[in-house]
Amino acid sequence: MRNSRRGDVDPFIVMDVMEAARAAEASGRHIIHMEVGQPGTGAPQAALDRLAKDMAAGPLGYTVGLGLPELRARIAQHYRDWYGVELPAERVVITAGASGAFLLAFSALFDTGERVGLGAPCYPSYRQILKALDLVPVDMPTTLAARMQPVAEDVARHGLDGLIVASPANPTGTMLGHDELRALAQACTDAGAAFISDEIYHGLGYSDRTATALEVTDEVYVINSFSKYFSMTGWRVGWMVVPEDHVRRIERLAQNMFICPPHASQRLALHAMDCGADLDRNVDVYRANRALMIEALPGMGLGKFAPPDGAFYVYVDVSEHTDDSVAFCAEVLAQAGVAITPGLDFDPVEGRKWVRLSYARSTEDIREGLARLAAFMANREAGA
Amino acid sequence: MRNSRRGDVDPFIVMDVMEAARAAEASGRHIIHMEVGQPGTGAPQAALDRLAKDMAAGPLGYTVGLGLPELRARIAQHYRDWYGVELPAERVVITAGASGAFLLAFSALFDTGERVGLGAPCYPSYRQILKALDLVPVDMPTTLAARMQPVAEDVARHGLDGLIVASPANPTGTMLGHDELRALAQACTDAGAAFISDEIYHGLGYSDRTATALEVTDEVYVINSFSKYFSMTGWRVGWMVVPEDHVRRIERLAQNMFICPPHASQRLALHAMDCGADLDRNVDVYRANRALMIEALPGMGLGKFAPPDGAFYVYVDVSEHTDDSVAFCAEVLAQAGVAITPGLDFDPVEGRKWVRLSYARSTEDIREGLARLAAFMANREAGA
Repeated sequence: MRNSRRGDVDPFIVMDVMEAARAAEASGRHIIHMEVGQPGTGAPQAALDRLAKDMAAGPLGYTVGLGLPELRARIAQHYRDWYGVELPAERVVITAGASGAFLLAFSALFDTGERVGLGAPCYPSYRQILKALDLVPVDMPTTLAARMQPVAEDVARHGLDGLIVASPANPTGTMLGHDELRALAQACTDAGAAFISDEIYHGLGYSDRTATALEVTDEVYVINSFSKYFSMTGWRVGWMVVPEDHVRRIERLAQNMFICPPHASQRLALHAMDCGADLDRNVDVYRANRALMIEALPGMGLGKFAPPDGAFYVYVDVSEHTDDSVAFCAEVLAQAGVAITPGLDFDPVEGRKWVRLSYARSTEDIREGLARLAAFMANREAGA
Repeated sequence: MRNSRRGDVDPFIVMDVMEAARAAEASGRHIIHMEVGQPGTGAPQAALDRLAKDMAAGPLGYTVGLGLPELRARIAQHYRDWYGVELPAERVVITAGASGAFLLAFSALFDTGERVGLGAPCYPSYRQILKALDLVPVDMPTTLAARMQPVAEDVARHGLDGLIVASPANPTGTMLGHDELRALAQACTDAGAAFISDEIYHGLGYSDRTATALEVTDEVYVINSFSKYFSMTGWRVGWMVVPEDHVRRIERLAQNMFICPPHASQRLALHAMDCGADLDRNVDVYRANRALMIEALPGMGLGKFAPPDGAFYVYVDVSEHTDDSVAFCAEVLAQAGVAITPGLDFDPVEGRKWVRLSYARSTEDIREGLARLAAFMANREAGA
């Protein structure tokens, strides 16, 4: 049967790592998972208990397209509680994960052939979703001086129709402050470009408070998710805050493209928002894991990394050890029994010199993984 | 902020009807809902009980992009059980509802500007999703002689790059037999067009057995859902069967566009597939409701309808009574307290002369709704 060109998207390289890790486990080996981008924890127990009651109370049919009104209102309150931002609940749109939000945002904002800028390295699916919609992802080099984030000048320099930023970022963990966000938003306004702020790692910041783009502008699409801080990956529910005059437009697209986000997931999300104490305990684990990573990695020759301000990743420059991060990761898996991710998924050019280590799992796992990595690197140096 | 042209999709007119019905209820009136396209029942209780155990057993994180292997295998078995079709489980892709399947199928098959044919009347979101992807929906007139379905000649006549058919169809309830499906598939192959068969109302056929396009060809995308027969609307899970050489392509798109379908919904779907006896009792209700409709409508001057072979709709030609189905439905709601859907959502041209009545709710509701309609029509005739 026929194929489209737009459908020729790139594979996820990390999937090959995960498959290799699974195969190793199937053959009896013990593998430490530092490749995965999801919490080891599930949704908060109290929230699951309340969902069980909802499920017993009656059918969970379609909700309205923009999502449960009480969840939209609760998220508006969240912006007051966390950021001191006053937000009408009408501007909050519940989505089928951040993935669903990207599909809605790109469809609402861009026409075929328009250029959307991404600071390399970044979340790989931005590129592939844009491509599937016949839009043009524009990979923009970044610098360590700018914390591997786009800068305001990039918008005009690359002739962008839109810009996506992420803070805290995947894979680097670096963050954007109010000044940077304000400058980027202004550059987009000046260029008539849409500004999209991916904030799905909010709540996972370890030094400064994470800043939302909504603190500096209303002319932005802010995308968030219940997958990371709220620890609800498999439930596929997220949200988006859009300018007031875009709500109706997004509603029509959402009704047609999704009908509604999963109802049970919306109810669970609502309940999870009342479980801050449980969720903050997860963050304490990430914080401890991060400290272990930052302490241990330099001693094994893996000390060149981007400032890991947030999220649960460390992005490490391994150019002193290899110029083929895919082969390097395969070697680490085979010899150390630790699964890590090559940078090529995040940056098709420079990524061959970088690897991403995730510390989303238990502290015990992180400790063991670091010990294995240290032994592997020492052995490798001795052999070199 | 900027807007795209592709994002300018049409509103759902039925949403206005639902809003008017809600407003009437809020003001204390009792409304019979014949506008809705979802079962009044929820997921089977036994399946919900098993899901509750799954939820207690551990976190429901991401699944692989194509969905739980055991669910894919169970669906392959379903094709053996229901149709005698042997299908490798690898060809089955779990999706975020049929909506997610449409997004994947259109992205995999069509490039910007390509023409995809729809037999009018049809499910409105086909048109709007195509438009959001910068594809061209081609509305093709149908005839009662061809059961308001596209015919093989339409493919070349309209210069199509793809064709979507639905059997049983929404809003008409008409079905396509093996011969029609074979002729349509062949016409698509001859024209190099993709053939997409929407089979989400399978299991809801009242005279002949519903035929799947997979009985006549492997060169087809078959789309199905757990929302209708399996009574799981709000869980947003469906599936797609694709040609063998398209699986890898769809996998890459699905990983990027959705990560995975909702995990809990996939588990519930797996359990629901073992609840055939419960689900068939729902079908018995629809069958009884349909008999009441077919018996009562002609006597009140609403007897010109498409052959309602399946699904839970009757699509009625009301041209003897009105040439403005939107106004007619508003009148029915205001005076009879029955919510029904104007045809304009399904057919932007001829739909002004048609209305859709759903019989998905309880038999008691259908009986009451028909009595109110009969009184309304008698009164209207007397007044005319």
